[in-house]
Amino acid sequence: MTFAMPAVFLFGVFALASSATQVGLSAKVLLFPYETDFSYVTLTPLKEMTLKAFTLCLRVATELPEERQIILFAYRTDDYDELNMWREKDGRISFHMSGDGTFFHLPPLGTFRTSLCLTWESVAGLTAFWVDGKRSTYQVYKPGHSIRPKGTVLLGQDPDKHLGGLEALQSFVGEMTDVNMWDFVLSGSTIQAWHYGRKVPEGNIFNWATIEYELTGNVKVVDDD
Amino acid sequence: MTFAMPAVFLFGVFALASSATQVGLSAKVLLFPYETDFSYVTLTPLKEMTLKAFTLCLRVATELPEERQIILFAYRTDDYDELNMWREKDGRISFHMSGDGTFFHLPPLGTFRTSLCLTWESVAGLTAFWVDGKRSTYQVYKPGHSIRPKGTVLLGQDPDKHLGGLEALQSFVGEMTDVNMWDFVLSGSTIQAWHYGRKVPEGNIFNWATIEYELTGNVKVVDDD
Amino acid sequence: MTFAMPAVFLFGVFALASSATQVGLSAKVLLFPYETDFSYVTLTPLKEMTLKAFTLCLRVATELPEERQIILFAYRTDDYDELNMWREKDGRISFHMSGDGTFFHLPPLGTFRTSLCLTWESVAGLTAFWVDGKRSTYQVYKPGHSIRPKGTVLLGQDPDKHLGGLEALQSFVGEMTDVNMWDFVLSGSTIQAWHYGRKVPEGNIFNWATIEYELTGNVKVVDDD
Repeated sequence: MTFAMPAVFLFGVFALASSATQVGLSAKVLLFPYETDFSYVTLTPLKEMTLKAFTLCLRVATELPEERQIILFAYRTDDYDELNMWREKDGRISFHMSGDGTFFHLPPLGTFRTSLCLTWESVAGLTAFWVDGKRSTYQVYKPGHSIRPKGTVLLGQDPDKHLGGLEALQSFVGEMTDVNMWDFVLSGSTIQAWHYGRKVPEGNIFNWATIEYELTGNVKVVDDD
Repeated sequence: MTFAMPAVFLFGVFALASSATQVGLSAKVLLFPYETDFSYVTLTPLKEMTLKAFTLCLRVATELPEERQIILFAYRTDDYDELNMWREKDGRISFHMSGDGTFFHLPPLGTFRTSLCLTWESVAGLTAFWVDGKRSTYQVYKPGHSIRPKGTVLLGQDPDKHLGGLEALQSFVGEMTDVNMWDFVLSGSTIQAWHYGRKVPEGNIFNWATIEYELTGNVKVVDDD
Repeated sequence: MTFAMPAVFLFGVFALASSATQVGLSAKVLLFPYETDFSYVTLTPLKEMTLKAFTLCLRVATELPEERQIILFAYRTDDYDELNMWREKDGRISFHMSGDGTFFHLPPLGTFRTSLCLTWESVAGLTAFWVDGKRSTYQVYKPGHSIRPKGTVLLGQDPDKHLGGLEALQSFVGEMTDVNMWDFVLSGSTIQAWHYGRKVPEGNIFNWATIEYELTGNVKVVDDD
């Protein structure tokens, strides 16, 4: 489902269809049922996202074909894609901060839920994905870098500019839940505990149980059963 | 990242960049972040490597594409590749002593850690790989042979002559840890115990906890998390 | 390794190289290290093989490529292949009694050990394979048939006539152990118990612990470790 109208305009139109801000998604799943260029969820962080390190965790399931790009998480400021996570066309999972990304060969995302965490710290640039509690090989990515504040976090779409420029063929279709984020690197045992649904320190950037969010377009909140 | 300079010269240059000898890598991982022809780790054995039998164990994770050769372990004397372990271009894992090797169809190496042991004994030539504690089929390889002493053990590169002749396209990229070696064949139950991180007899050639090593080029020692 | 000499002649020659009859292979593995047309093991059954039902179990590991035929068990009388088990060129596992066989899609055999049982009974012709304790779909195969006595059981080769006609490209290469056979159909729970190495009724046709066997050509008896 694509539209020929300019994306900025579209963005404005569908902003009218946004829900009011809501709070808390404990035991809930975000369901993006169709491919669109107008459905997304905005998340409000608990603190400014000036980051020299982070852990980002979420659970995701999708039936999208393997050869299609999928945006998994987008944090954008006026000038930069600050922190984007993608499933690439070639099946790899990538992590981008302001420009060239780094790419990981992970087991394919599919119809069964995958738990996915991403850790990065600025000092050595060590970064890794954790899939269902297992760590990938570390890669060294942008040591010394820091993530800028005052942007917007979207689930479901990749904005090519701040608050605009969405593309259906990059959208997320499927289920996403348990999006949590910390401004430090969690230990491996904590990430495993999170994977198994055990109690871990609450995310101090995003905490799914009390998360502040706004739905736009066709996104459903369903019970996690 | 390749250089046109002769490898021997390079080798000399980068030897200048070597760390002093260090001791002990307990709970540490060697991270080879990029493809180079100058990054490697030299290991000092606890005894001369005149071997009529051995067990070599290590844990390894790599994102290198399946169709690329990867050196996993290289022990070379002046005239011979005494004991080399490779991931071959076709995905098989091979074991070479002074010439033609023997090849095994094992599950592919990837971004999650694989524990890999290799056993060989000279009397019958019985050799096998153990992947995550499971033994491959035995093969009969070079019965009567013995491995010569006074060479050099490298991780990360394959020297085509003693202390020289490195090639980026054979280099190791990824993580290696828990490199241990014994001058005898461990039992299957001991190898399984090692895989699960339980206490086993300390390696009498290499013991990761007290290993004497020297870093050259771009190799990082990171916490094993 | 193939020879241009007629196979019958070869067979005679290598019969000279046979071991004397030996007894008992408890905790031992038969290792067929190379592809040959002269290496095999003859098994002496505990009773005449006039069979209206049977269970045949064995454990097997092989590195042979997927597209090659492999003989897994051959019982031949003068005129018939009485009971042959194959890994076919297309990867399926087959079971033949005197002519056309029946074919099963099972998980591929590989370098790690697979436990394989085959059951058949004449009344309804119900036959199934059990792979690592899990049963395949039943097939109906030759109800009313019975297997004839006074033949020879070979491991490692398929004789195209009684005691002759061997082909390297059908030979078994790898490890075989725990070959046991009963003249009745074991229950599923007994087959699972056997898979896990628990105590089950001793095979009354072949009992690996006390089996009478003769080695010919290049076959090694090695400890099962």
